[in-house]
Amino acid sequence: MAVNDIDRLIQILARMPGLGPRSARRAVLFLIKKREALLLPLIQAMQDVASSIKPCSLCGNLDGCDPCTICQDERRDGGSLCVIADVADLWALERTAAYRGRYHVLGGVLSALDGIGPEQLNLASLYRRVEGGTVGEVILALGATVDGQTTAHYISDRLRNFGVTISRLAHGVPVGGELDYLDDGTLIQALKARSKV
Amino acid sequence: MAVNDIDRLIQILARMPGLGPRSARRAVLFLIKKREALLLPLIQAMQDVASSIKPCSLCGNLDGCDPCTICQDERRDGGSLCVIADVADLWALERTAAYRGRYHVLGGVLSALDGIGPEQLNLASLYRRVEGGTVGEVILALGATVDGQTTAHYISDRLRNFGVTISRLAHGVPVGGELDYLDDGTLIQALKARSKV
Repeated sequence: MAVNDIDRLIQILARMPGLGPRSARRAVLFLIKKREALLLPLIQAMQDVASSIKPCSLCGNLDGCDPCTICQDERRDGGSLCVIADVADLWALERTAAYRGRYHVLGGVLSALDGIGPEQLNLASLYRRVEGGTVGEVILALGATVDGQTTAHYISDRLRNFGVTISRLAHGVPVGGELDYLDDGTLIQALKARSKV
Repeated sequence: MAVNDIDRLIQILARMPGLGPRSARRAVLFLIKKREALLLPLIQAMQDVASSIKPCSLCGNLDGCDPCTICQDERRDGGSLCVIADVADLWALERTAAYRGRYHVLGGVLSALDGIGPEQLNLASLYRRVEGGTVGEVILALGATVDGQTTAHYISDRLRNFGVTISRLAHGVPVGGELDYLDDGTLIQALKARSKV
């Protein structure tokens, strides 16, 4: 019975962030009604993403090529490394167009509550990149949350003997806020006013 | 450049009801991170829906078979026809399991503001079904909005000479609702339609 097809789609959609069962039902009806204009293009776009997008083996960014476009871009300053928790933070920084260095995506922040220790983050590859010797500055662009600041503290501690400048985003980032939700102006100010640890 | 794949998916997702550009970005990252557990099953479920689901030529319901499961179900009372604006309303009524007749989906309500006239709704097929002679009662289960009530009025007017009973959903106090929070119109309707205890 094909009503089950609809129910299954609703159940899967309801697991997405920002959608509950009720909004998933609305979305599914909307998709079915706009089959040619929305549902089929959406399927195609998802297939493209599913088949092409993978994490960059250097920085952890998501892209269709490996190394990612940013890591391959010769015009970007390889001497500057911006450490962020998540790809969403990388997107937020790229939207500002205020940073022309490279990135390193941790894949999260240290969190005792969620049981995320240093082994769960892309830290080993960060140390390798800094050890490589071409990096002059590491910018710790982590959220101004307790976990974010703990992670920044931990990393700056571990990088102390590598002879690199370590900086963090200026306060201006609202305490308790996530990078992903910040407006561009605040992000630009925070980048400009970064201070040495 | 495959970042465009991500951007295109974000743009399409942002057109869904309840999702804006920001929540679409979050959803896309969530999907990419849960590729096996969420993205691939979602693509499959959407493909199943896109290929199998179509409107029932009798009642306008969405199903994988035509006539739909409800129209085919011999145990349902073909003498009762519940007229609703949208498939979402049919789902809402089916969840109550309180109605065992058949449905007729109008595909909207009359709306001067949105330029929806009688020709845009599935009215011709409704008249044909009622003319068929097996229908004894038509329940107008339309929203208690100006447009919904206008539509109900229009339909009851057109069906007057078909010799069928025409009814509408009761207006009154929602179950679990406080009198204090109700609007005057609902209270007046609830008072008028009071029933003996």
